[in-house]
Parts: sequence; structure tokens; C-alpha cells
Amino acid sequence: MDIKKLLASRAKIMDSPGIGEIFRVIGKPGMISLAGGLPAAESFPLEIIDKLNKIVLEKYGRTILQYGQTEGFPPLRKALCEYVKKRSISSSEENVFISTGSQSILDNLGKILISKGDKVAVEAPTYLGALQAFNPYEPEYIKVETDDEGLIPESLNEVLEKHKIKFIYIVTNFQNPTGRTISFERRIRIAEIIERHDALLVEDDPYGELRYTGSHIKPIKSLAPNNVIYVSTLSKVFAPGLRIGFSISSKDIVYWLTQSKQGADLHSDIYSQALASEYINGGYLETHLPKILAIYKPRQMAMLDSLEKNFPKKFNWSRPEGGMFVWVETPGIDTEKMYWEAVKENVAYVPGKFFFTEKGEGLDTMRLNFTNVKEEKIEAAIKILGELFLKSP
Amino acid sequence: MDIKKLLASRAKIMDSPGIGEIFRVIGKPGMISLAGGLPAAESFPLEIIDKLNKIVLEKYGRTILQYGQTEGFPPLRKALCEYVKKRSISSSEENVFISTGSQSILDNLGKILISKGDKVAVEAPTYLGALQAFNPYEPEYIKVETDDEGLIPESLNEVLEKHKIKFIYIVTNFQNPTGRTISFERRIRIAEIIERHDALLVEDDPYGELRYTGSHIKPIKSLAPNNVIYVSTLSKVFAPGLRIGFSISSKDIVYWLTQSKQGADLHSDIYSQALASEYINGGYLETHLPKILAIYKPRQMAMLDSLEKNFPKKFNWSRPEGGMFVWVETPGIDTEKMYWEAVKENVAYVPGKFFFTEKGEGLDTMRLNFTNVKEEKIEAAIKILGELFLKSP
Repeated sequence: MDIKKLLASRAKIMDSPGIGEIFRVIGKPGMISLAGGLPAAESFPLEIIDKLNKIVLEKYGRTILQYGQTEGFPPLRKALCEYVKKRSISSSEENVFISTGSQSILDNLGKILISKGDKVAVEAPTYLGALQAFNPYEPEYIKVETDDEGLIPESLNEVLEKHKIKFIYIVTNFQNPTGRTISFERRIRIAEIIERHDALLVEDDPYGELRYTGSHIKPIKSLAPNNVIYVSTLSKVFAPGLRIGFSISSKDIVYWLTQSKQGADLHSDIYSQALASEYINGGYLETHLPKILAIYKPRQMAMLDSLEKNFPKKFNWSRPEGGMFVWVETPGIDTEKMYWEAVKENVAYVPGKFFFTEKGEGLDTMRLNFTNVKEEKIEAAIKILGELFLKSP
Repeated sequence: MDIKKLLASRAKIMDSPGIGEIFRVIGKPGMISLAGGLPAAESFPLEIIDKLNKIVLEKYGRTILQYGQTEGFPPLRKALCEYVKKRSISSSEENVFISTGSQSILDNLGKILISKGDKVAVEAPTYLGALQAFNPYEPEYIKVETDDEGLIPESLNEVLEKHKIKFIYIVTNFQNPTGRTISFERRIRIAEIIERHDALLVEDDPYGELRYTGSHIKPIKSLAPNNVIYVSTLSKVFAPGLRIGFSISSKDIVYWLTQSKQGADLHSDIYSQALASEYINGGYLETHLPKILAIYKPRQMAMLDSLEKNFPKKFNWSRPEGGMFVWVETPGIDTEKMYWEAVKENVAYVPGKFFFTEKGEGLDTMRLNFTNVKEEKIEAAIKILGELFLKSP
């Protein structure tokens, strides 16, 4: 059978062969990959999981293996509700929705909100996974300008005045791909703008807890609670393999997300949700998080120091206080072309163009990950890239 | 904010308040629910899970908590490939796709195949969860007639001659909701028909392993391998809470399912996939399955015996050799109206109309589940229903 003849019209938008090629080569032996977005496996709480397994089986018995509620495992909804209080977000359990990674929250949001041709405002550049989640619903993307301090409020205001926007999607802390964080002053202005336009903002915050220096900044959710769907995940503070993402929103939105999720996967893994609720309630998250930060902080410093030493002075790069990524602007250098040269020298990264919704943008940008590579290797990789840049015309 | 103003046009099709009302009351204390489709919690291999937890943590260490492959955890893909051999399905690991319950396989299939208005052929009645998975993609359903032996091949042939069908969706063994199984003779004819029309068939087989009497019948996948996507799950033979569904299809389809799943949830829980692969490879599934069957067989007999004793002779019901459901045709009785009478007497079931795609069909039908209720309670519930039927005009 020729499956191509049977594909839905949306399928071609879902195909991303370019980025696939980029990632296909990073498994090559000897490769130092700054390309991925993976946490370090050594940051995962293996011994704690062993304990949690015993606690969960003893506490819940066979019932923990049964079908569960679409909205999420009740004890985890409750635990997450408490968990986000530290981020100045007030909610009740009924505002919490849990799904198969925050990716699945974004998919379900796209499904309930986007009709073909609807306009979705996104940062330029923006998180690739969000585009992959929204693309099947065939939105039109409207870009909001950003600078070193993240999203520019005036640009957002302009976009909302000019276009009928279904929702705005942004990553507020240590954005993927740029590592940039929106300042508190800007958050206040963004909150004011979305309230004035009665606009819906999806605030994605997967990296907020990974702060190595400076102080936490309150989420926009805490400033304009009625206009924001706050999305986060336990993938960076517990274990990504367990696929636990969540959102905090109005009960209306929880209702529609639930309708959507019922058709999408009925509910997410209950056993893993039980592990997660014990991880939070038992105080393990609180004691384990500093250990994760202790692994990442020196890696991030190693990367920033090496960039200073090895990259051309005319380059501009972000100096994030946390997260997983550094963003480099490489004026005059086509980073996709350069990629294949770098790969020959056993170094991989992601050419920045993949994070833009408009063709031709970001050709001279790149994303570097520092969480899943040890310091010495980061230094070696940045040195190799620096030499390649020097050699390039 | 008024979320209703922001909803996508597809949202209204995803809303199913009717069935929600039916299920809302089944948690009432004292209720005997024949309404759900749950396995019995006492059938779950709790002690085995305890063992598997240790095996998995020891074997894989921290890596099992990391992000994983979208297509599925490689050792589980391999194990499932061997597992379906017993069902006469030959495949290689690359034909196996794993997702968050078979519900999520259906969602991803809908996403890659259905454009708005595309025709999907389904049995009448059909599995409600499949409709919930496909509805967001706005297909038009074309019904294929069924009788006591399941789908009628001549009706399928007619549908394929008259309509341009994207794919056909059927449940071959102990169908949900009817409990009916398509005979081997019919499967041969269906295989011949779909091959002749070069049509794509989605063969959903969640219940095939739950056979209490009679012999297993080869799936249509084994008869027309190129035209069939075979979908199954470990929810009925391992643990539904762990959400492991899978499909066997051409590599082309695996490619597109992977593109879709990348946007939908990146990948399914890796830890649970590791538990499942050890469950299969360690021979646990094989030794545990008879214990599950030993729980369900007497329940099914109790239900069939009670129906014989208590239900009006003019009623017609299925006499499945396995699965979880019995389907009852109740000429002259509106089963939805009757539902609220039954609930007053503490008995719940599902009125059959919810399993039909056309309004006004199946008003005098009902689905009864026997797996999650003990024999005495099944007998008591059927007696109560029988008395209600006698009293009704």
C-alpha cells in the first residue's frame, strides 16, 4: 500500500526531516553533543526511586495499576498545587491538569484551541517542541520580537492590536533555545497588556527551578492569573522518562483539556504519577534539587568561560543564570553549513534556524546545551568550534 | 476570560456530556456497576511488579529515567515482536510502535490519516473510545452492518464500492461493546475484500488474549499483512495504569506515527515500558495470564446464566467466549430511560446508543461488563434488571 496517498493534509506540516538529519549523527562514537536538550542521567534520583517504589506498592496496592482519572492522579494534583505555591501561584487541585509530559499539555491545548488558520503568537526564536505540538492543528504563527531580555512587551502589544490572536505561547525562564529570562519589569508589563486585551497566554516554565545564580522571578501566572495557563514539568527535577507534565489553569480549561485527553490517551501512567506524588510529599524533591544544581552550575560556567576564551569577539551570546542552553549569534556564519564541518570534528549543536517560524531567519544562530556534557568535554568542544569559526571565511 | 469564545471548531465534537452523566453516578456507595470497562484489580500482578522494579533498576540504572525513543523502548519493541508471533503475526522490531495506551495509537492514527470530512468506516455499534480518538479530526463515519457473527463482509464490500474510505476501524475479538468475535471464515473474506480494494484496515485487538472457551482465531493482520495496522495493548494482560499500547504496521506508517507522537507526547513512560519488557521476556505474562482467565471465566458464566434466568425471552444477547462484555438487545425498551430507574436500585450499565455513530440507533440496546464485579453481585444485578424489565410497559 502507498501510505502517502492516505495521509491527512496536515501530515506534511508535521514532517521535519531537516532536524531529524541533524540528530541522526549525534549518536556517532566519540561525538561531543551540545545538540540535545537532555538532563544529565547522573542527576536522576535512582536510590530515591527505589524507595518510592516500595512506598507506592505498600500504600496503594493493586489499585495503583488500575485505570485512573483523565485529569490526573488526585494525590499528585494536590501535591502539585502545593508545589507551585512556592512560585507564588495560588490554585486548588481542580486547577491542576496532568499529562504525558508537558509536550502532551501543549498538544491538548492545540487541539482544543486551534482551528486551521488561527493565529498563535510566539517568540522568535521559540521552542521547537511547541511548534511540533501546534503544527498538526495548522495555525498561522505571528512572531513577537525578542532581545537579550526576552520578549519585548511593545512588540506583543503591537501584535495584539494588529491581529486576532488565539493565544500567545512563551517560555519565561531560561528559554529554549536562547536561555533568556524575561525580567520582572517586563513580566509586569506583559501581564498588564494581556489583561487589557483579554488575551490568553500560555506560560511554559520547564526550567525555572534550574537557577544557578540570582533570584527566582515570579511567573506571569501570579500577576495575571485569569489570563494565563501555566505549564510546567517534573522532567528536569525528577525524571523525564516518567513523562509528567502539568498545567495550572481555570477549571473551564481543565474541563476541555480533559475532554481532549480522554480521546488522546485516556490518562497518563498512574504508577509514575504515584511515584511523583511521594517524591514531592516526602520532601525528596526539596533535598534532591540542590544536587541537580550542583551538577549543572559548573558545566554552565565551563561553557560561558570557554565561549569567552574561544569564540570570536564579534559573536553575541546569552549569559543565562540557569536552565540548559546558551544561544549564540554568529554574524556572517551559516551555522547549518558549519554543522557538517563540526560533526567531522566530533562536535554537534543545533543550528538556530530550526527555532524560527519564518524561513530564512536565524541562519547565523546556534543553540548549545551544557547539562548533559562534563566540563572538560564542554571546553574541548567549544575550543574546536572556536577554531572552525576562525578558519571560516 | 470566556474560554468558550476561544475554543477550536472541533471542540464541540469532542464534548460528550451524555456519557459523562451516565458515569458520574456509578461511584455512589452500594452501586453494582456493570457500566465500566475495567479489568479486576485483583487480576493485576502486584508481586511480580515488585520483582520487576528491582530487575529494571538493577539492569538499566539511571538511564531508565532518561528521555527515550519516540517509537518505543527498544527492548519492549523486540519483546512485542516475539509476543505477536503467537498470534501468527510476523514482524520485525521496526514494525512495532508503542504509545500511551492503545487510545494514543488511535489518536495518532487519526492525526496522520484523517482530514476534515474524510470517510472512516466503522462497525455499528463500535468502540466509543475510537470515536473519541478520531472525532477531533472531524471524519465522516460510514457504518458497516454487523450481526451476531460480527462485521458482515458483504456490507464492507458495499461500503468500499460506494465510498472513498480512508480506513476501516474494527475490533475483531470480543468486540467492545458487543462481545462478538468475527469468525475465521469472515476474516478470510474481509482480508480478500480489503486486498482487492487496496483498503487500509485498523484491526484493534485489546481482548484477544481473554478467551475462556473455544480456540484463538488468527487476526486479519496475518491474512492481509500489507493492508492492516494491528493495534493491541498490555492493559488487559499486565496493568492498564501503566498505559502500554502498541501497533504492528508497515515501516512507512511507523514513520508517520513517530512524527505525530513527537508532537503529541515525545514518547511514552520509559520506566513502565521497561517493566513490560521484563514482564514478557521473563515469562511472567505467560504464567500470569491463566490466573487472570481464572478470575474472569466464572464471572462471565455467572452473567450468561443469570441472563438466561432473569431476562425476557424476547431479548437477544451475545454469548461471547471471552472478553469483558455482553451486549443485550431489548426490543421496545428505551435503555437510557431505564438507566435512571436501574440506578435507583443501585445497578448501572451503559445504554447502547452511545456506541452508534448515527442518532436514533441502538436505543433498545445495552452493554454489560462482567470482569470487574464478583459472581454474586453479577447475579444480584441481573436479577434486579430482569425485574425492572418485567415491570416496564
